[in-house]
Amino acid sequence: MTDINERDKAVFEAGIKLGALYHQFVGTPISLETVDSLERIIEESIALQPHVRSVSVSIDREMVEKKLNPEFNYCELEGRMLDVSLQILYKSTIAQVELAYNEEKDYPLMSIKKIEEM
Amino acid sequence: MTDINERDKAVFEAGIKLGALYHQFVGTPISLETVDSLERIIEESIALQPHVRSVSVSIDREMVEKKLNPEFNYCELEGRMLDVSLQILYKSTIAQVELAYNEEKDYPLMSIKKIEEM
Amino acid sequence: MTDINERDKAVFEAGIKLGALYHQFVGTPISLETVDSLERIIEESIALQPHVRSVSVSIDREMVEKKLNPEFNYCELEGRMLDVSLQILYKSTIAQVELAYNEEKDYPLMSIKKIEEM
Amino acid sequence: MTDINERDKAVFEAGIKLGALYHQFVGTPISLETVDSLERIIEESIALQPHVRSVSVSIDREMVEKKLNPEFNYCELEGRMLDVSLQILYKSTIAQVELAYNEEKDYPLMSIKKIEEM
Repeated sequence: MTDINERDKAVFEAGIKLGALYHQFVGTPISLETVDSLERIIEESIALQPHVRSVSVSIDREMVEKKLNPEFNYCELEGRMLDVSLQILYKSTIAQVELAYNEEKDYPLMSIKKIEEM
Repeated sequence: MTDINERDKAVFEAGIKLGALYHQFVGTPISLETVDSLERIIEESIALQPHVRSVSVSIDREMVEKKLNPEFNYCELEGRMLDVSLQILYKSTIAQVELAYNEEKDYPLMSIKKIEEM
Repeated sequence: MTDINERDKAVFEAGIKLGALYHQFVGTPISLETVDSLERIIEESIALQPHVRSVSVSIDREMVEKKLNPEFNYCELEGRMLDVSLQILYKSTIAQVELAYNEEKDYPLMSIKKIEEM
Repeated sequence: MTDINERDKAVFEAGIKLGALYHQFVGTPISLETVDSLERIIEESIALQPHVRSVSVSIDREMVEKKLNPEFNYCELEGRMLDVSLQILYKSTIAQVELAYNEEKDYPLMSIKKIEEM
């Protein structure tokens, strides 16, 4: 075992934010008219949490459209609709992570893209 | 027992929306900078659901301010911060309900304000 | 407009509980091994809320099985998996409601089944 | 920048689980009678997610008791009531993390406790 370092903490914080975002907002009623403002509020809310340097959320409009209930004309936000890119800055370490739908696994996959010293 | 009528359905739908709104959005990170856009997206999201005629959400800024974590400068949306006024139109019946913090009971109380025929 | 009565309140409370249940628990990781205990805790949690006389939750095991991710062997609770029967007792009025997946509408439908005086 | 390694991934996965758990279950109605089963289902649900080696959830009964609404005799699960210890096993690396209420910061703090090779 080695001591816990900045890099560990940056990556840990990045994981926390993706898990939080996912389980807070999945289930929200959504339509093509509200998708823009929902993207923005998810970004704004997550950006409030400690050590977030930037966060960009994009919701798959094609999936939303396919899932719209024909009678009621809305659906619910699902994890697979989410495309999130997030940077944590912990002291001088930046961890860049993402959440993206993986078609092959049919799973909303969270992964680390890059870790760097500023 | 009597048959289920329009009035019953209007009031039932109104209850559904308040319960949904509460448990979907409570826990969202919030600060004085995001309170406006969070109010709007809650309104927009709930307005998508069936039979909603209007919905108005107001979050208590004083409570948010008091709850802000001094180190991290944000808090989480709590039920007691919510003031919601909602109208359901079911066929020709309007049910107006609200969610408001009741200080005496220390409870976010949901109640029916008015039921009327259009 | 007429005054708000017991019947209105019973039906309103019933709606609140279904909306709450839905948006609190949808998104929970689930497998065939945890479906029983998830049903029980949803029942127990909702039964704590005011005026609940009884609540019975059944999760569609076939749907869960179909949705299991082949690599990770779990999925998430979806609204359409839920079959809920709930009774509110408000003073001497009982409102019985349910949440059930409606295949035709492809929608998790909430409806009033019966309203009666005790 | 260095390549992303097992250790990074173990710590990242650990963060995801804590964030998910928190935002999925906060808001659940709870009383002293349901606290045991709620602890178990949170453990069971999170244990389903990829790479979880073990997870132990303890809810602060004293806080629950203090927060019980005197009229309705229940409250809602809050982040500060949660004490969670979780181990991720990613290939041969174990990351042990926790969520615990930090009184000084008045914040439910998530932290890495240990990282080791099996």
